Amino acid sequence: MKDLVQPVEAGVSQQRGGNLTRPKVWLKNNLIRVGLAECLSTYVMMSFGLGSVAQVVTGQGVFGHYLSINLGFGLAVAMGVYVGGKVSGAHMNGAVSFTMCVFHRLKWKMLPLYLLAQLLGSFLAAGTIYAVYYEAIHDYCGGNLTVTGEKATAGIFATYPAPYLSLMAGFFDQVFGTGMLLLCLMALSDQKNKPIPAESEPAAVGLLVLLIGISLGSNSGYAINPTRDIAPRVFTAMAGWGTDVFRAGNGWWWVPLVAPPVGGVLGAGLYKGFVELHHSHLSEQDGAMVEEAVPLDKETNTCLVQI
Amino acid sequence: MKDLVQPVEAGVSQQRGGNLTRPKVWLKNNLIRVGLAECLSTYVMMSFGLGSVAQVVTGQGVFGHYLSINLGFGLAVAMGVYVGGKVSGAHMNGAVSFTMCVFHRLKWKMLPLYLLAQLLGSFLAAGTIYAVYYEAIHDYCGGNLTVTGEKATAGIFATYPAPYLSLMAGFFDQVFGTGMLLLCLMALSDQKNKPIPAESEPAAVGLLVLLIGISLGSNSGYAINPTRDIAPRVFTAMAGWGTDVFRAGNGWWWVPLVAPPVGGVLGAGLYKGFVELHHSHLSEQDGAMVEEAVPLDKETNTCLVQI
Amino acid sequence: MKDLVQPVEAGVSQQRGGNLTRPKVWLKNNLIRVGLAECLSTYVMMSFGLGSVAQVVTGQGVFGHYLSINLGFGLAVAMGVYVGGKVSGAHMNGAVSFTMCVFHRLKWKMLPLYLLAQLLGSFLAAGTIYAVYYEAIHDYCGGNLTVTGEKATAGIFATYPAPYLSLMAGFFDQVFGTGMLLLCLMALSDQKNKPIPAESEPAAVGLLVLLIGISLGSNSGYAINPTRDIAPRVFTAMAGWGTDVFRAGNGWWWVPLVAPPVGGVLGAGLYKGFVELHHSHLSEQDGAMVEEAVPLDKETNTCLVQI
Amino acid sequence: MKDLVQPVEAGVSQQRGGNLTRPKVWLKNNLIRVGLAECLSTYVMMSFGLGSVAQVVTGQGVFGHYLSINLGFGLAVAMGVYVGGKVSGAHMNGAVSFTMCVFHRLKWKMLPLYLLAQLLGSFLAAGTIYAVYYEAIHDYCGGNLTVTGEKATAGIFATYPAPYLSLMAGFFDQVFGTGMLLLCLMALSDQKNKPIPAESEPAAVGLLVLLIGISLGSNSGYAINPTRDIAPRVFTAMAGWGTDVFRAGNGWWWVPLVAPPVGGVLGAGLYKGFVELHHSHLSEQDGAMVEEAVPLDKETNTCLVQI
Repeated sequence: MKDLVQPVEAGVSQQRGGNLTRPKVWLKNNLIRVGLAECLSTYVMMSFGLGSVAQVVTGQGVFGHYLSINLGFGLAVAMGVYVGGKVSGAHMNGAVSFTMCVFHRLKWKMLPLYLLAQLLGSFLAAGTIYAVYYEAIHDYCGGNLTVTGEKATAGIFATYPAPYLSLMAGFFDQVFGTGMLLLCLMALSDQKNKPIPAESEPAAVGLLVLLIGISLGSNSGYAINPTRDIAPRVFTAMAGWGTDVFRAGNGWWWVPLVAPPVGGVLGAGLYKGFVELHHSHLSEQDGAMVEEAVPLDKETNTCLVQI
Repeated sequence: MKDLVQPVEAGVSQQRGGNLTRPKVWLKNNLIRVGLAECLSTYVMMSFGLGSVAQVVTGQGVFGHYLSINLGFGLAVAMGVYVGGKVSGAHMNGAVSFTMCVFHRLKWKMLPLYLLAQLLGSFLAAGTIYAVYYEAIHDYCGGNLTVTGEKATAGIFATYPAPYLSLMAGFFDQVFGTGMLLLCLMALSDQKNKPIPAESEPAAVGLLVLLIGISLGSNSGYAINPTRDIAPRVFTAMAGWGTDVFRAGNGWWWVPLVAPPVGGVLGAGLYKGFVELHHSHLSEQDGAMVEEAVPLDKETNTCLVQI
Repeated sequence: MKDLVQPVEAGVSQQRGGNLTRPKVWLKNNLIRVGLAECLSTYVMMSFGLGSVAQVVTGQGVFGHYLSINLGFGLAVAMGVYVGGKVSGAHMNGAVSFTMCVFHRLKWKMLPLYLLAQLLGSFLAAGTIYAVYYEAIHDYCGGNLTVTGEKATAGIFATYPAPYLSLMAGFFDQVFGTGMLLLCLMALSDQKNKPIPAESEPAAVGLLVLLIGISLGSNSGYAINPTRDIAPRVFTAMAGWGTDVFRAGNGWWWVPLVAPPVGGVLGAGLYKGFVELHHSHLSEQDGAMVEEAVPLDKETNTCLVQI
Repeated sequence: MKDLVQPVEAGVSQQRGGNLTRPKVWLKNNLIRVGLAECLSTYVMMSFGLGSVAQVVTGQGVFGHYLSINLGFGLAVAMGVYVGGKVSGAHMNGAVSFTMCVFHRLKWKMLPLYLLAQLLGSFLAAGTIYAVYYEAIHDYCGGNLTVTGEKATAGIFATYPAPYLSLMAGFFDQVFGTGMLLLCLMALSDQKNKPIPAESEPAAVGLLVLLIGISLGSNSGYAINPTRDIAPRVFTAMAGWGTDVFRAGNGWWWVPLVAPPVGGVLGAGLYKGFVELHHSHLSEQDGAMVEEAVPLDKETNTCLVQI
């Protein structure tokens, strides 16, 4: 979180101080460095996440329940954050990267690199989990790879809506879920509110994803992430499930692509409007002032609470 | 927790030093600031919490069990604490705010603002979760919104007692549950006992609520919170469940309003009487002395243990 | 943990420096202070713990499973540690207090006070939980309070062995479970190995108890604690279950009294023999040297690992 | 983790400064010290882990589900890390020790000691758990100790593949699972990325093992550890299950021996290649420079992210 916050401020000081001695090669290498870290962290997150779904689906009640999937994705996100760490910030989610761009915490030029790394990591993870669970999946469905029906297995890789869900309600579901994700991520990274130390970030983000799965998962499988959803969907289309993966759920596939960025910006904006903008006596441009300002903030806050 | 403790002390220094230069506008803005933070944190907590109940009820055993609801409310409280953070202290519970007033940790004048913000946040969360799970709920109950019976759905929003529970036993259940909540909150925030660092507070409070759900949940759904219960109940009365929400359980609705404040004060008082009052050699008015006093405290404690 | 370790060292310095000015009244008050804290922490732990069993038994599969009980007791112990904190050390377990005495971390004179406080806290908690779940229990068993049989409810309060378990195997089960508890408690509190910071102790001890429940719970309900078991057993004998609580399981009642202290001493001794005694270059009497010695310790350890 | 990293660096300084005064006796004693700590930590981890399987298998659905086993092994690993701590680093896994040797974090000469200690600890734990659950196991299977079939109990001690799993797929499953374990362990211990403080290591490693169980457990029981698997297998062969333990699953027994070291090296190498090697401006030999380099690292990283 902190790592998502710092870039802009540091970048400002960077532009002031200038740093013209570093060669272009170094910049290119660093682009590769960020891309590789984002790709590997997404790969780790998606491998563990999809693995937990594969285990529950093919295990038929013996090897875990829905809560195992919630725990699986929550812990998977935490491990991904450890892997990507300070290098890329481990977004692992196109809607997070997009929202960071909108709120000036990531340069727009970097967005394609993040999206590409996330798509690649997700695609490779889908392929790996299919390989790891190849015999389990084929044993479960009798070699008949289907998207719908009792023995459907496409849901191991991409998300599909519940039978009762209309596209509009599903769109709202994804806007709301991603909104809650970004709202809470903004709160967790707000250095003027109740910040968490860097070492607790992975766990806190993981618990947040666990919570979203527990409370907003049943409508449509809580994709809340465009890159997490489309890459495995394309993989399944190619690996034998066919074009049904795009037709199922009244053409559900585009919803997890479009709704999460909308929700992410709304959720982050809601936090800003309700809380962050009101840290009023603190200069928002100058990160260095935050330290000094904390006692003042406490005092004024306290004074207020006692009026 | 610490944030709940500090106001009084800081306020004292505030009154000593005086601070007459700040304009009334600033105070008004700060009231809005605290109100918005309390409202948003309650909204986040309630959205996740009610969402977890909606998922379990409409999921019919496939999307989680009772433990998911316990985890859902526990983690929801933790996230709410991150969101409200230092700004409002994130009580999110009228019984907590009331008890804080009784024990001089919150000015009585602030109580209406807190209650209002909590009621508003809860009401909006109930509305949002009804919208998110609208199709799921209507698919589950066939469009028949009922308070009792096999396909009852009112319990997604407000609490209702088990069939065997009398009003008096339910009243005691809510007094005891809220008492345990406040007793442990006082222990967690006691800077002279075994305080937790600020960054661990959200997790500790979340685990406490998880624990209450696991051990004191089955009698009447552990409301332990008047504002959490009444706002969604009013919402359901308006949204189609009708006045049955007030009649069910022999007119259960007033119990989660009246019992929790009673229990909160009793529980917090019990901790004070058994533990806090006996930190005897420490001046309780002067927060600065606590740091110095700790080694002394340790020594005397130790000496005693070895008599 | 640290609190359990420090007494002896601090006491030594106490004896050196002398402190003759403190009056007897102060000592007596401090005895009351430690006793009240130990009693309240045990009460909190037992209320939550027994509550989780009552909820699962009377909930008949709807309000939690065995894992809920494991989580309930684990979190209950963590909360108890927060409540008793630095005042009494929050043993909440006669076998822990006894083992602390054997290894000179608690004066033998203090043992009766700890046991009495634990027995009282456990007894009051059993009474409270019976009151809270009175209607639930009577609804579940039809008012027929039995110790064995399909609708037995005595197991909510005290532990009973599985039908297949002989007394000797049960004795070994309790020795082993308590041994693992104390072995790990010694490791958690070993300042020369991998100590945990004071604020993480409650969580670590809670996770340890959760783990014991998950892996050593099914034979006889993991009492691993004489005071936790006998006080609620006596309560049930008085409250309507009768003397069957002492006859059931071939007279099981004395096993959780006798086996845990034996196991505790063996487990703690095993850790001492395998690990603690080999921290050889550090003076064990002088706590102040530990800080200085740590870099040395690291160096020699490292050197060794590379031989 | 940090403890795994430091040896080499410290050893270098050791060789520079020299330390010829320490007698051979001291070195021998220290070998014993490391061996005892590794043995005891493995014993604790395996006792809790195997105990959780025994409880679920003999409990027949009443005393926990598959998730309990995942939690059991995860928490067991955390407790093992506390026990072995700084003395041996608590590998408790031959594949971890082997990978540490390959990446110069453990001297090859130390490997036999670690393997021996791990084998001994695992064997003794298998024996202990058989003793603790002797009556439960015999009651469950009617005294008929079998490796396959409905009432098979050999799976309590060693891992066996699912019926659908071919040896080649099982080999890949074990390579991948151990690869993910070591990849994440390398990330958790990378001091230049997002390191965790020493006191959080046990919990983080425990959560990692929990996650592997939740997402990569159903194919073959996630041994991901040669010493964990072979020692209990030999114990069962001797204790009455006979040579079937080596014949079952088409002679599965050698897979958990051979695949994990391969996977461990691949996973750790993957992290090195994608992330660690690209911390380019930091001298990797000089641990002291890491502290200084961190602000630089942050700055360059940030600069890069904004290109």
